[in-house]
Amino acid sequence: MPDSFPLPVFTGDAPLYDQLYRHIAAAIQSGALSPGSKLPSKRRLCALAGVSMSTVETAYSLLAAEGYVLAKPRSGYVCAHLLPSVSTPPAAAPETAPGSIPAPARWAFDCSTSGVDTSAFPFSSWARITKEAVYENPGLLQRGHPQGDPPLRTALAELLAQYRGVRCAPEQVVVGAGADYLLTLLLQLLPEQETIALEDPGYPAAYTAVSLHQRQAVPIPVDGAGMAPEALEKSGAGLAYLTPSHQFPLGVTMPAGRRSRLLHWAASAPDRWLIEDDYDSEFRYSSRPIPALQGLDRAGRVVYMGTFSRSIAPAIRVAYMILPPELLERYRRTFFHGACTVSRFEQESLRRFLVQGLYGRHLRRTGNLYRKKCALFTEALEEIPGVTISGADAGLHFLVTLPRFSETELVDRAAAKSVGIHPLSRYCHSVEPRPSTVVLGFAGLTEDELSQAAVLLKEAWA
Amino acid sequence: MPDSFPLPVFTGDAPLYDQLYRHIAAAIQSGALSPGSKLPSKRRLCALAGVSMSTVETAYSLLAAEGYVLAKPRSGYVCAHLLPSVSTPPAAAPETAPGSIPAPARWAFDCSTSGVDTSAFPFSSWARITKEAVYENPGLLQRGHPQGDPPLRTALAELLAQYRGVRCAPEQVVVGAGADYLLTLLLQLLPEQETIALEDPGYPAAYTAVSLHQRQAVPIPVDGAGMAPEALEKSGAGLAYLTPSHQFPLGVTMPAGRRSRLLHWAASAPDRWLIEDDYDSEFRYSSRPIPALQGLDRAGRVVYMGTFSRSIAPAIRVAYMILPPELLERYRRTFFHGACTVSRFEQESLRRFLVQGLYGRHLRRTGNLYRKKCALFTEALEEIPGVTISGADAGLHFLVTLPRFSETELVDRAAAKSVGIHPLSRYCHSVEPRPSTVVLGFAGLTEDELSQAAVLLKEAWA
Repeated sequence: MPDSFPLPVFTGDAPLYDQLYRHIAAAIQSGALSPGSKLPSKRRLCALAGVSMSTVETAYSLLAAEGYVLAKPRSGYVCAHLLPSVSTPPAAAPETAPGSIPAPARWAFDCSTSGVDTSAFPFSSWARITKEAVYENPGLLQRGHPQGDPPLRTALAELLAQYRGVRCAPEQVVVGAGADYLLTLLLQLLPEQETIALEDPGYPAAYTAVSLHQRQAVPIPVDGAGMAPEALEKSGAGLAYLTPSHQFPLGVTMPAGRRSRLLHWAASAPDRWLIEDDYDSEFRYSSRPIPALQGLDRAGRVVYMGTFSRSIAPAIRVAYMILPPELLERYRRTFFHGACTVSRFEQESLRRFLVQGLYGRHLRRTGNLYRKKCALFTEALEEIPGVTISGADAGLHFLVTLPRFSETELVDRAAAKSVGIHPLSRYCHSVEPRPSTVVLGFAGLTEDELSQAAVLLKEAWA
Repeated sequence: MPDSFPLPVFTGDAPLYDQLYRHIAAAIQSGALSPGSKLPSKRRLCALAGVSMSTVETAYSLLAAEGYVLAKPRSGYVCAHLLPSVSTPPAAAPETAPGSIPAPARWAFDCSTSGVDTSAFPFSSWARITKEAVYENPGLLQRGHPQGDPPLRTALAELLAQYRGVRCAPEQVVVGAGADYLLTLLLQLLPEQETIALEDPGYPAAYTAVSLHQRQAVPIPVDGAGMAPEALEKSGAGLAYLTPSHQFPLGVTMPAGRRSRLLHWAASAPDRWLIEDDYDSEFRYSSRPIPALQGLDRAGRVVYMGTFSRSIAPAIRVAYMILPPELLERYRRTFFHGACTVSRFEQESLRRFLVQGLYGRHLRRTGNLYRKKCALFTEALEEIPGVTISGADAGLHFLVTLPRFSETELVDRAAAKSVGIHPLSRYCHSVEPRPSTVVLGFAGLTEDELSQAAVLLKEAWA
């Protein structure tokens, strides 16, 4: 049977195990795999389909859970006789994301910007902490503080003061399930802000959030010092979202003069606010960290935002924002009835991770990993004649400019070698993208994979 | 020292431990408690302040964490010499919630509707499951499916089919951090819906969500069968939010005829949708569960929503909604770039809790507990001459009507005996509340506390 087993063709953005499960379920439903016939062993299917053991295991356990296959002791999985009680056949349409980022499945080397290195994640410490957080805190089952539990907020305020020069009391911290969620919450808090200034090029999710709240996004060009203040002043916007520590995606760090000018803009009229998204400031390689804009703000006009998605892992859905006093008061009038969107057990686990020094150690380890990866990848790519690399001082991605090809050619030639990269134009709205420029993330690939990807890119762009 | 210890006066809606911690911190800062002086033992402070051990423990550990007090082995806590490095003094303004529910702090017996009984929570199983979910799934660190991980969605679809007659494929399930968050997401998905029909009386957070999205809430009266269809038809709204299984707060169950009529309303024009919030359908005492409206919907017009906040615990921030195909497609176009707001480890823990049969066992145990509590409390209150109890067939609250007092008198007289209850008018918008009626939640109190509360209410309402 295994030799005639119909192998799937992986496409789209759905997870591999999900595609594999759907493919086999459809084959059983259609009769291509007949009732009673044996499925390949897990190990064999790994080899046949070129996927990992965990992909196969998840697909098989889904099939078993839904009654498509039966697990027979010592003889593996066999196809079931389908009964009408199998109530949830997989839908025909795969779970693809139109207009979404290149799927990991489609490339041998995925250089999108959303990966992180989880090899250094301290699983055993996290598992221990999680267990202790449940056992030692029965009180955490009840409803917690809407802004997040005070002990976590205290730990966050101390961390941000120490690492980022953020000046705040724990009362000002709002914890939520991801930076995108907190941005949504801020927009609901500021209904009078009808036009919102966003960096161009900039973070796509910020544009999405603004449009989902029926507000007008005003793209403001980014120059070598960050968001251009003249354009912001002319825009009529009262709220500006920016990434001053490491502009996304250009990688520019905003110098002191520009910071003062933007703070002055915010302070010079009522109802003007800056949202400082410090999304990957934890990682700087060739310069000292620059303190947050928030720490320089004397007028109470900056909302500081950060997340653990990159510094710990995307799976940890904890982000935070620091509200200035005026917005804090407004927040409390508006949202104080609600519950915090992060589980209290997870809040307590994270607090323990921070105060027990595990987070600091994890940052040092991953910082060193990323520094090495960034150096390795950029040094290899710099061997390509005519190439310019920028924005590689910090964070988990950089830009590559290679004038002899167009942006589309750069992306297509990389794709032909199975290296997935993003065109810079993906992040541009009104501005013309810098020509012949692409965005490369390196965090999700191993050093070995980065070396291989660099070899392929050198061939692709020769 | 303990005898001269300045005891706090608890007020407002901030958690007790937070008030206690602020009070002691302020006393240390002001010098009312001098450096080196001993704080009362935890046990003694419980007795002095009339609060629980966990309240005192949390307050003391916050004080210790922030350097206000020092823990001395075998002699308890002493006040620290404050140094300038204590960087985060508690703000003057307490964290109160204007217009929020009566604070647990203010009553000896809190009969608000948000409590649940966590005494039956299987801590050791949950701790084990959580630890296993971390250890056995390193892949969960990376970004997951925006709708929630497919294995959890499969488990949810099976659970809802079995318990609630919901008909859906796992593809239609969207997992999110709380029902309020999912409601927010739905409103963003339906920007063309400018007026939204809400039950009157009804769930306050739904009104808040609608106003935060700059939409118009149209209150629709609730009669003995639920939302009144004539008023809905006249309202011009295209989206109606309802709680048909156990109307909040009246406790009415919608009969079959009314269900058909509302489904007919939704199916008879494009862009009409019903949101069915099945928030506490897990608990029914004197009748068989009624299948969800969603299972009767042939036109694909019902969004089904549910949560584990009541059936497991408020701390577990996992809710789900089932999108009909048309909205699912819209959701995927709009939100597919985002990340699920629930941590993947928590998703996996919950999945294990469901598929290992622990959830079913927990529901049976808590269902029996609540049945007993409800019977005990209602039987005791029915001894009050002239009293009528309604809505006690299901859920975690019921209504008490006692015509010889006004609503305000009922609430104030209960408060004078330190029993916190909600007036029905709190949930009313355009309709006049049923006179002399209050809402009593019983889930958060023990049987013993309910007996005591009933004695006090009998005295209060004699």
